[in-house]
Amino acid sequence: MKYSFYDDYSEGVHPEILRYIGEHNDDQQLGYGRDNYSQLAADRIRKAFGLPHADVHFSPSGTATNVICLRAMLQPYEGVITPHSGHIYVHETGAPEAAGIKLIPVPSQDGKLTTDMIDSAFGTYEDEHTIIPRVVYLTQATELGTVYSPSELQTIINHAKAKGLLVFIDGARLAMALTSKNKGMSTTNFGSLGADIFYVGGTKAGGMYGEAIVIVNPELQHHFRNQMKQRGALMAKGRFMGQQFARFFDQDGLWMALGAQANENAAYMHRRLAEAGMDFDLTVDANQVFPIIENTLVEELEKDYGFYRWTKVSDTQTKIRLVCSWATPVAAIDKFIDRVTELRHAKGQ
Amino acid sequence: MKYSFYDDYSEGVHPEILRYIGEHNDDQQLGYGRDNYSQLAADRIRKAFGLPHADVHFSPSGTATNVICLRAMLQPYEGVITPHSGHIYVHETGAPEAAGIKLIPVPSQDGKLTTDMIDSAFGTYEDEHTIIPRVVYLTQATELGTVYSPSELQTIINHAKAKGLLVFIDGARLAMALTSKNKGMSTTNFGSLGADIFYVGGTKAGGMYGEAIVIVNPELQHHFRNQMKQRGALMAKGRFMGQQFARFFDQDGLWMALGAQANENAAYMHRRLAEAGMDFDLTVDANQVFPIIENTLVEELEKDYGFYRWTKVSDTQTKIRLVCSWATPVAAIDKFIDRVTELRHAKGQ
Amino acid sequence: MKYSFYDDYSEGVHPEILRYIGEHNDDQQLGYGRDNYSQLAADRIRKAFGLPHADVHFSPSGTATNVICLRAMLQPYEGVITPHSGHIYVHETGAPEAAGIKLIPVPSQDGKLTTDMIDSAFGTYEDEHTIIPRVVYLTQATELGTVYSPSELQTIINHAKAKGLLVFIDGARLAMALTSKNKGMSTTNFGSLGADIFYVGGTKAGGMYGEAIVIVNPELQHHFRNQMKQRGALMAKGRFMGQQFARFFDQDGLWMALGAQANENAAYMHRRLAEAGMDFDLTVDANQVFPIIENTLVEELEKDYGFYRWTKVSDTQTKIRLVCSWATPVAAIDKFIDRVTELRHAKGQ
Amino acid sequence: MKYSFYDDYSEGVHPEILRYIGEHNDDQQLGYGRDNYSQLAADRIRKAFGLPHADVHFSPSGTATNVICLRAMLQPYEGVITPHSGHIYVHETGAPEAAGIKLIPVPSQDGKLTTDMIDSAFGTYEDEHTIIPRVVYLTQATELGTVYSPSELQTIINHAKAKGLLVFIDGARLAMALTSKNKGMSTTNFGSLGADIFYVGGTKAGGMYGEAIVIVNPELQHHFRNQMKQRGALMAKGRFMGQQFARFFDQDGLWMALGAQANENAAYMHRRLAEAGMDFDLTVDANQVFPIIENTLVEELEKDYGFYRWTKVSDTQTKIRLVCSWATPVAAIDKFIDRVTELRHAKGQ
Repeated sequence: MKYSFYDDYSEGVHPEILRYIGEHNDDQQLGYGRDNYSQLAADRIRKAFGLPHADVHFSPSGTATNVICLRAMLQPYEGVITPHSGHIYVHETGAPEAAGIKLIPVPSQDGKLTTDMIDSAFGTYEDEHTIIPRVVYLTQATELGTVYSPSELQTIINHAKAKGLLVFIDGARLAMALTSKNKGMSTTNFGSLGADIFYVGGTKAGGMYGEAIVIVNPELQHHFRNQMKQRGALMAKGRFMGQQFARFFDQDGLWMALGAQANENAAYMHRRLAEAGMDFDLTVDANQVFPIIENTLVEELEKDYGFYRWTKVSDTQTKIRLVCSWATPVAAIDKFIDRVTELRHAKGQ
Repeated sequence: MKYSFYDDYSEGVHPEILRYIGEHNDDQQLGYGRDNYSQLAADRIRKAFGLPHADVHFSPSGTATNVICLRAMLQPYEGVITPHSGHIYVHETGAPEAAGIKLIPVPSQDGKLTTDMIDSAFGTYEDEHTIIPRVVYLTQATELGTVYSPSELQTIINHAKAKGLLVFIDGARLAMALTSKNKGMSTTNFGSLGADIFYVGGTKAGGMYGEAIVIVNPELQHHFRNQMKQRGALMAKGRFMGQQFARFFDQDGLWMALGAQANENAAYMHRRLAEAGMDFDLTVDANQVFPIIENTLVEELEKDYGFYRWTKVSDTQTKIRLVCSWATPVAAIDKFIDRVTELRHAKGQ
Repeated sequence: MKYSFYDDYSEGVHPEILRYIGEHNDDQQLGYGRDNYSQLAADRIRKAFGLPHADVHFSPSGTATNVICLRAMLQPYEGVITPHSGHIYVHETGAPEAAGIKLIPVPSQDGKLTTDMIDSAFGTYEDEHTIIPRVVYLTQATELGTVYSPSELQTIINHAKAKGLLVFIDGARLAMALTSKNKGMSTTNFGSLGADIFYVGGTKAGGMYGEAIVIVNPELQHHFRNQMKQRGALMAKGRFMGQQFARFFDQDGLWMALGAQANENAAYMHRRLAEAGMDFDLTVDANQVFPIIENTLVEELEKDYGFYRWTKVSDTQTKIRLVCSWATPVAAIDKFIDRVTELRHAKGQ
Repeated sequence: MKYSFYDDYSEGVHPEILRYIGEHNDDQQLGYGRDNYSQLAADRIRKAFGLPHADVHFSPSGTATNVICLRAMLQPYEGVITPHSGHIYVHETGAPEAAGIKLIPVPSQDGKLTTDMIDSAFGTYEDEHTIIPRVVYLTQATELGTVYSPSELQTIINHAKAKGLLVFIDGARLAMALTSKNKGMSTTNFGSLGADIFYVGGTKAGGMYGEAIVIVNPELQHHFRNQMKQRGALMAKGRFMGQQFARFFDQDGLWMALGAQANENAAYMHRRLAEAGMDFDLTVDANQVFPIIENTLVEELEKDYGFYRWTKVSDTQTKIRLVCSWATPVAAIDKFIDRVTELRHAKGQ
């Protein structure tokens, strides 16, 4: 297999997680998330985010999580404002719509939402013939590798609440967002901003599988497990998700550390690529790097490396996506940069 | 926690599975089930069941699996014949219906379906005002601990095909069914019977999570991954499900062995309970035991043991469910029997 | 075409309705049910049923009405208790399920529901793995031609409310139920019983199309038009449904008169058939007659008459359904009876 | 009530339709669209459009029609390309999404689709994580009053077919499109273009209610009535829709004549408004007129006239929508123009 910069889930699970599972494998536990490990993990997450009254549930995949949370927040005649680049809009095979949910996409250049975009979604709302915007969906970090600052998020959340909207934050890469350099995010700060529901990504942060759903708004907490079961997301041996998050949120702050490591790897890759003369039109706030590269170079690199072509920039240039994870060795980045440099020299660039 | 006979997922994962995952954790793999382990597991499952042209996919939960498979088999105006006791009908919080699927339940005393029951489901079918029966759903082993013999299954499948019906077998406890004493089932025999789709249960057989979907009918194979993604069941790190099933279906036949062990434990429990004078109205073909017990005894036992009250038998008696797993120690069964005997003696029974 | 006893919608619209539409066709009106006629009709219905605070909406078909009302009454994890013979369960091509609704059918011999049947539906309810019963669905008159007495209905509604259930009454044949002989029903009496939502059938009572939904429970009134639009049931020229019901509920009580006429026709047919020696196992409370007839006779009658074979009674007998409407001429009934008598004499019966 | 230019369904039904219904009201007919009138109407529509092998069904509302047709054309993982202004996207309260359908909106200035827009919808398609574009949805005439020429439509349909896409045309205002001046459309020409399904609008063309669905593609014809019933659109007394369309498509070409009349009224209004100095940025191909008017004038006009504010053009100007129908008197238009002129003079404009 070619070396993969495809994503942050090409690697296995962090060894500490595996060790923890192995050490706590011999007891009996209640099924379907009622086990002690899930309760321990929930307590630790509540404490980390400073949200003692939040409900915490564990769900196996991001797509299932998104659908379940949105269903719990919406009446049938209400819809979801999302950036056009939002994961729920472009990369979930219509999972929300298959569950009866209308999304209201608004264009965004950098993956972030603004209050103006929220307002624009009301442009089409009139009466019983149009869907009523009800939930604001955003991702932190975004699909384009950008990260909201606390004040950006606070502004959006305040604006949403003033308009009677609920806020749901997809945190598949929340570990990277909360450890993004110069953004000043932290778990307690994030928890205090007032999102109604958010989720704490496990898979992309070094886990095996699973995301932790944090329901802050008490009106959204009831019968949530029923919704999970109905969507196939109540796991019989939920203990394993509980164990992962119990370990992630143990005193040594493993979850944050792995997020920070992924960011650091990406920042290094970004710096090296910029030094090598690559162009960028997006900031690298988290663990995704989007250099703009000559098409001929893209083709050469694809022989040895796995990555996605993101968008065509011009007839001769393409923006590609390179993702670093907690497990990306610096040596792998160096080798990639060397190859880029070598290929460009060969072409006289 | 009280000792649990609640179910077959109170224990952790079999150590061999965990060892295998640990040994193969350091490489990069493609995401979403395109990894080498999933391919290896699929090959081994195809070989075990003698179905070289089947497609194999791995899904995190039984409920998600049921919904995805049924959706792939049905047009919107078609429905599913299921025993009234079927898992999809009673224990999935309306997951099929939430996905737009109409179930047609038919009464069954022992959890099994018969050709007469299939025929009875056509009683209400007339024209465009009624749902057209299209899929026969059955569980092997059933929710009531019974197991179909090969000839029983063959009769049902032949009958279904003659009527233009597809057959889907829920194999959450298939390991127990294929190792049921005196039933003469085997993987190759089961594979040859002609079900259109079945699934190979991992969770209840000693895995961490995940079921292997085997699509035998080539007309149902296309775009199946799209359906999985839309239902939140395409796992980013699908490698872990692949590893579990690769190990389950390695040469030593771990999956079958664990199924057989669960059955053996239940058979022992059944024999001991019968010797102690307990009544039964269901056979114990697999790993579930349903003794009929005096209500006063039930209350006493509940102080030390976890199990479900299944049905009220009379004003003084209740049928309870005791489930054994691959991991149930004989000593735990003995201790339970001792307690039963002790309590009955105390009552002069 | 053979003379039709198939149903109560083989005939056209009552001439008075058509006249009223023709007389009020030249003005402009607001669209989508906000017209003056719909408001007038709503006022008249509120007055007739003694429910001044009810919301009234007009919907084009019974199936659309059922789905919309149930959707407005249910959370995704809640279900509907219905007699096994309920229209929503057997004759709507899975429309409720296609809208994500789980029905909980309970066996009924005469089409009616009892409090015991309601209780039995809770037998399977346990926890988040099972659907929570929430709505009681019943039809008045039933699909089997029977009619609840006021006290029967009151008992059910009180029982439902005591259990925290909502009650929805499908009134496709409500005109016949409220004019059923010896039942003591009336519009005000019916309105006082406490159903949360019911509908007033127009199509089968002599209208062109449309049913009037009466939402008594104020908690179910909000955003109902949004639900109607989403299900394709908000009619651009809603004025025509308004006009039909304005005329139906004008001072001369046309709607009730047409219901009574249908019943009278059926009672006459029932008496004549009984005199001719036909057997019945269902009472004839409304406008449907279910005689049990020799199979050979059925075949002969089908040459000249349209009707449905309802159920096989024995190897030699079939229960058939004969429906009378407000428009059935007595002469047509007499002719049918003559033919029956003639055929039986020919066979020496 | 203020005089309404809100829409083309503020008026009643054309007297000829009502007369026809009255004349054919006394016979018995089969229910649910199997009546002789529906068959006659279907024959006449097949003949008018030159499509002898098409299936024709009658559905009560446009929204129900759109959902049913799209459901019949799509697999669960496929989606619909629609102009951003498409009725299904903005004005049906999420009806398609509530039925599980993902729409793929593409921006359009004049309500029309182009081949470039179709291509752009494939930009996000990759693999099983993204919805597969499958159906092209367009409206003829569009929601913005524009009409495709035959060659424009032919280009789109050919392009769609070359890409393996199906084409569905929403013809709520097809009568106006086919009689649009200088467009050279006709029923036979339109029928020959190769759309897979289209519908023939009745409500907005002077009917009471109902749209005629024409299924040209034989692969989409099977079980369509089941889909209709499941969506509450199979009308018990379907005869009335049959009668409307039988009369519409009788030899005198009433349907086309009424469409032409609506266009003529709008063309007159457009000319008079242009003469009065109003601006337009959309052509007036059919029966909708979108003048750009000073806000102060809008407010004055709203005192006496009903119409919709469409979009804000600047801080001082608004684009409003004025709709003419087959029944709009020239005098009503003249009076409106007089009022506009008077108000502008008063303001010195």
